[in-house]
Amino acid sequence: MNPFEQITIVGVGLLGGSLARVCKKKGLAGKVVGFGRTPEKLKRAQELGIIDAYATDLQTAVEHADLVVLCTPVSTLGPLASEMAPFLEPGCIVTDVGSVKKTVVGDIQSQLPDPVHFVGSHPIAGGEKSGFEASTSDLFEQQKCIVTPTPKTNPSALSRVKELWEQTGMRVISLDVEEHDTVFGAVSHLPHVIAYILMNTIGETSTKNHAEVISFSGGGLRDITRIASSNPVLWRDICLANKKPVLNLIDKFQEALQQVRSTIENEDSQLLEQTFERANKYRLNLL
Amino acid sequence: MNPFEQITIVGVGLLGGSLARVCKKKGLAGKVVGFGRTPEKLKRAQELGIIDAYATDLQTAVEHADLVVLCTPVSTLGPLASEMAPFLEPGCIVTDVGSVKKTVVGDIQSQLPDPVHFVGSHPIAGGEKSGFEASTSDLFEQQKCIVTPTPKTNPSALSRVKELWEQTGMRVISLDVEEHDTVFGAVSHLPHVIAYILMNTIGETSTKNHAEVISFSGGGLRDITRIASSNPVLWRDICLANKKPVLNLIDKFQEALQQVRSTIENEDSQLLEQTFERANKYRLNLL
Repeated sequence: MNPFEQITIVGVGLLGGSLARVCKKKGLAGKVVGFGRTPEKLKRAQELGIIDAYATDLQTAVEHADLVVLCTPVSTLGPLASEMAPFLEPGCIVTDVGSVKKTVVGDIQSQLPDPVHFVGSHPIAGGEKSGFEASTSDLFEQQKCIVTPTPKTNPSALSRVKELWEQTGMRVISLDVEEHDTVFGAVSHLPHVIAYILMNTIGETSTKNHAEVISFSGGGLRDITRIASSNPVLWRDICLANKKPVLNLIDKFQEALQQVRSTIENEDSQLLEQTFERANKYRLNLL
Repeated sequence: MNPFEQITIVGVGLLGGSLARVCKKKGLAGKVVGFGRTPEKLKRAQELGIIDAYATDLQTAVEHADLVVLCTPVSTLGPLASEMAPFLEPGCIVTDVGSVKKTVVGDIQSQLPDPVHFVGSHPIAGGEKSGFEASTSDLFEQQKCIVTPTPKTNPSALSRVKELWEQTGMRVISLDVEEHDTVFGAVSHLPHVIAYILMNTIGETSTKNHAEVISFSGGGLRDITRIASSNPVLWRDICLANKKPVLNLIDKFQEALQQVRSTIENEDSQLLEQTFERANKYRLNLL
């Protein structure tokens, strides 16, 4: 692809750092600039060769960029867009990596002047690790990236952003913002809430002789609660930004759990088996 | 340890098959006999050298055994104990591998005549795979095995059973039956119920444009739902056999989930972060 002159990565964490590495490795930009609030971290990222330069001042960071990628938690995206708006060059493309799209796309788009082109992105990569120390240039390989164009989206900016993600090794799929938020509410946000709550329920269970029960856990529990290690601030923001779909999904989950509770209470062996078998079948589709 | 003359393994599946392999490998028994209902499977296990002999008739299988290990689903244990009781030699030791202990120990103990010694066991090994084809002689290595003696348990039978599990590579811990059932209700049974229900909730979520949302899942969802692949009949039986603790734990989980639901609805950002952070801390204890 035709490289960008300067890509500015706002938030050099796991995703931002990994994107910076790919840009450098594949020559996707003449210059990769990192923006953050902590100069020590940015300096370290520069020393590691992850970014070419850095700034802790937003104007300096973005004023010469033809692409700005917002890689900070979803709650910061609207305020950041507003803060950088006066300094962006006409024709500059702005994208993000937020896990929620309807509120985020609205927040960002409303802050940017017309000659700046915003395209919502959600690369499905990451995990419970965070920080640029965990970043790798192959984080995105073989993963999916969702882009969420709206009627306002500039078609050539959309193509450029798609191209960028394809260069990182991802398969790019377009979804509308609401569709995106229901899909990821189900496959990502709800599972995180459930993992956190399950971990708390188990952590707070004690028996008459043992202070805690966790020491008896096996591999199954380690797997099911792995995402309970995820960053609390990040997931707090995601749940709040995707409030409506997340609440709907919690309601559906609670209803299904209440049903299985009655099935166990009534010892309806056949229905209980059917319920678990249905889950087996859905699980097969994940493999 | 002093080897048994004949160990009869009732149910040559993942656990039974793995125990048979260890017994053969370490010479823990003069003879390992497998009992089951499907001669083809038992023949295959014999051909593979997992067992020395087999029987599909319970009398033949157990009448010369000095140790019988019940490795079938928990709902079958009481009826099997009753069926084999007339054929067991005085002094014979019977143990099991059931994931639930209070109801199971009661069911088995009440069926066996006094000169036969029952010791409840629960080796914490296995996983979502099943069948002797998946069995290995190192399945138990480094794992925990719970034994659940009661005031009626014969002390030398208890020692023999402990020794057996230690020989498989496990660390043996004694718990009383109720303690066991609360602990494993929390760290194992509740997580399975939650994984099944989460899988069903996600599997039954559709959006206006997509028939299913599962195709957008990432590694996080694969991990959290891995145990939703577990055998439905096995887990149906476990939930029913450990009904009271499981219902209590479902109630605690529902309460905690309801609380987080309100927290999201009220946008109480600080409380939501604290809730997720608590889960982070409990999760650290699992590592």
